[in-house]
Amino acid sequence: MQSNEKKVVLVIGAGDATGGAIAKRFAREGYIACVTRRSADKLQPLIDDIRAEGGEAHGFASDARKEDEVTALVEHIESQIGPIQVFVFNIGANVPCSILDETARKYFKIWEMACFSAFLSAQAVALRMVKRGRGTILFTGATAGLRGASHFAAFAGAKHGVRALAQSMARELGPLNIHVGHVVVDGAIDTAFIRDNFPDRYALKDQDGILSPEHIADNYWFLHTQPRDAWTFELDLRPWIERW
Amino acid sequence: MQSNEKKVVLVIGAGDATGGAIAKRFAREGYIACVTRRSADKLQPLIDDIRAEGGEAHGFASDARKEDEVTALVEHIESQIGPIQVFVFNIGANVPCSILDETARKYFKIWEMACFSAFLSAQAVALRMVKRGRGTILFTGATAGLRGASHFAAFAGAKHGVRALAQSMARELGPLNIHVGHVVVDGAIDTAFIRDNFPDRYALKDQDGILSPEHIADNYWFLHTQPRDAWTFELDLRPWIERW
Amino acid sequence: MQSNEKKVVLVIGAGDATGGAIAKRFAREGYIACVTRRSADKLQPLIDDIRAEGGEAHGFASDARKEDEVTALVEHIESQIGPIQVFVFNIGANVPCSILDETARKYFKIWEMACFSAFLSAQAVALRMVKRGRGTILFTGATAGLRGASHFAAFAGAKHGVRALAQSMARELGPLNIHVGHVVVDGAIDTAFIRDNFPDRYALKDQDGILSPEHIADNYWFLHTQPRDAWTFELDLRPWIERW
Amino acid sequence: MQSNEKKVVLVIGAGDATGGAIAKRFAREGYIACVTRRSADKLQPLIDDIRAEGGEAHGFASDARKEDEVTALVEHIESQIGPIQVFVFNIGANVPCSILDETARKYFKIWEMACFSAFLSAQAVALRMVKRGRGTILFTGATAGLRGASHFAAFAGAKHGVRALAQSMARELGPLNIHVGHVVVDGAIDTAFIRDNFPDRYALKDQDGILSPEHIADNYWFLHTQPRDAWTFELDLRPWIERW
Repeated sequence: MQSNEKKVVLVIGAGDATGGAIAKRFAREGYIACVTRRSADKLQPLIDDIRAEGGEAHGFASDARKEDEVTALVEHIESQIGPIQVFVFNIGANVPCSILDETARKYFKIWEMACFSAFLSAQAVALRMVKRGRGTILFTGATAGLRGASHFAAFAGAKHGVRALAQSMARELGPLNIHVGHVVVDGAIDTAFIRDNFPDRYALKDQDGILSPEHIADNYWFLHTQPRDAWTFELDLRPWIERW
Repeated sequence: MQSNEKKVVLVIGAGDATGGAIAKRFAREGYIACVTRRSADKLQPLIDDIRAEGGEAHGFASDARKEDEVTALVEHIESQIGPIQVFVFNIGANVPCSILDETARKYFKIWEMACFSAFLSAQAVALRMVKRGRGTILFTGATAGLRGASHFAAFAGAKHGVRALAQSMARELGPLNIHVGHVVVDGAIDTAFIRDNFPDRYALKDQDGILSPEHIADNYWFLHTQPRDAWTFELDLRPWIERW
Repeated sequence: MQSNEKKVVLVIGAGDATGGAIAKRFAREGYIACVTRRSADKLQPLIDDIRAEGGEAHGFASDARKEDEVTALVEHIESQIGPIQVFVFNIGANVPCSILDETARKYFKIWEMACFSAFLSAQAVALRMVKRGRGTILFTGATAGLRGASHFAAFAGAKHGVRALAQSMARELGPLNIHVGHVVVDGAIDTAFIRDNFPDRYALKDQDGILSPEHIADNYWFLHTQPRDAWTFELDLRPWIERW
Repeated sequence: MQSNEKKVVLVIGAGDATGGAIAKRFAREGYIACVTRRSADKLQPLIDDIRAEGGEAHGFASDARKEDEVTALVEHIESQIGPIQVFVFNIGANVPCSILDETARKYFKIWEMACFSAFLSAQAVALRMVKRGRGTILFTGATAGLRGASHFAAFAGAKHGVRALAQSMARELGPLNIHVGHVVVDGAIDTAFIRDNFPDRYALKDQDGILSPEHIADNYWFLHTQPRDAWTFELDLRPWIERW
């Protein structure tokens, strides 16, 4: 590898614990972490953490649902910071609702956030990677991407769409030396959201019953480092006590 | 069954041979066929065919992507024609494209046509069916709903979304006595489009190598008539010589 | 179709309600029903039923796990009764057990009964059908054929094997005009076994909550009658209130 | 971890390059490698390699299809060498054949080698691991374990059975702190067999088009080291240029 070349990891959706942990993991390996969420000020603690560890990090307020914002973001990073070697799409939108109560607006917004923005950003980065003939594109998936469930039509639809995107890109871009992967997270993650809203679930943390963002991040790094003769498209992650 | 009750089948997307054949099949069984496509004039031959066979048919120009149009359509049919006992969603949008060339506009439009309109119309009808405690909701699916493929990110994404919608609805609405089904059509259908654009493929018709719309329609009728102790959610359909 | 030609349906494993109902269904359509189970005397009520309806039926004590018995059975039917146009494999072996307690003997026997015998008998019949250039081969499957589950390693292994056999045969023999299908039965069936051992489950019969063997059989007949331009490989069957 | 505790990895089927590479990988991490194949003398080069690197290795001639041999092997290792912390099942039997030509003997033998022996050995080891409350059980799978294909009824049946076993064990033993995983190898591996029999395929090695056994082995090690809050059940591995 070119050791003095700048290498960038772009994490779209670094607002939650998982995206942040992934950014930190790659930063520790020498990658410049470019992280986005809709409001940039909330990114500051993550940026500070990475810098405190000696890493380089840049935060961007960017709405991944807007093509022009996505295009401008990628252009800015590539021209001002460095080539994006690793792309991680990590926006979720797990909002359950009965199909009888779901609104058209919410059904659309869940897809727009969790799937359309995946297309926009992954494509923008893929165009650059293909020109360079290398790169890694990783999507955070969910069990809802594998099967529908009662009260999950919208979220399952979006996550199915992300998986279809990932699989289609893997099949087209693999032979162009772009490694595309899909990580199926199956279980509650150790986040403030779970802690505050599902205390019973969160209590399982004492026995490793919820996923650690840092451990999830290790899998993204592992996928990125796989030699190209043995690439993984998909792996699942769940706590040992999770029922599935 | 209440033999003197009016029974309506609503086919969203009766613009192609399959939707038309389904409408005819149910009309022959005594259902009032309500058929839609974006421009109503093109529906006239189908309406004429059904009426010539002694059936009742109504054509509607309706954009299934518009919530207000969908709501108004269902309201009109239910109040003026009869209760929708069977709903068929049959809009496709099989437009292949490299992920590197796909436009955001087209990616969105394919989803809007093939998936968002499925949500809008299936939900509008489901709300009525749930109140009556019965009904059948059938979606036309495709192999692209099961796996992504090179050059099929947009279509596969939309079809994956339809399957997630169908599966989520089946799991929620089955116990409310609504039969939800998903038909995976795998192969070329005997249509003018295939005849004009894929003559080599169309030539397979001589040996039953492309799907007959009438035979596809028989499966929709069969699914509708299954007693509720033995409902099918999903079946696939392909010509005997199709590779899969 | 050649209306004066003798047509045989062979049901391997007609010992339970499902196999019996399938045999009756085809007998009513003019097929000579050849039915097997390990002890022939228990077949007599089924034979009597079919004959009482004016059908023709033959019962055979045959161990489907023994190659020579299977070969002799097929040879006998083909030479003495008529060509086997339809083959149904319907032997199950749903015996749950912890992987920690399962014995090698039982693991083997479950596979031998539910999978190896499927191979032996389906192949013996396929060899005849291929020579005639037509035929239908149907396997009774289960949800355990789609995914493993705690305490179901043996049964899931056998049913996965049956599905792999069915799929491999469908892909090879479809283009030889042999229709191969796999029916995934997901739920309790209305049998004496369920009635006697799972009374709570059986009580769901009042609300159509368990599968009727006759209704299952209708699906086998439907699959057999599909024109070859639109063949189904797989369909699932479950009661409307079944959780899945 | 208990650093001065003896730790054993048992690789059933170390006759090929993959099993050998896995054994070497774990030996380098301090595991005592116990490796088996039917004839022990062919194991000597592997044993020598591991010892030359400073590792500890033991070779066993053991027929994994024989319950008593498997039981004796596990008993010997556990009592004489050390506790089996990691178990790898790596026996394949990829012998394609038309369903019309397959013999009952070969269909059985392929299942016995590739699936029955997986049950026998994984269970024998699991019983020990469950008592200790820890362990890792990994199976080498194949694409044939996910879907059947023309000319692959026997191999697909065996591999489907292995996957059903792995999934059933994962669901039952996960909550007992046993990590069960299934690695889907999709593509040709860099072996003497491929080199000698598929030279065109082997020539792809120059562009990383066939899987390196060492790189496959890295994934087994990675799975073993995953913390239990984020365990993977299944991952796939294929070369970048592989069509799938």
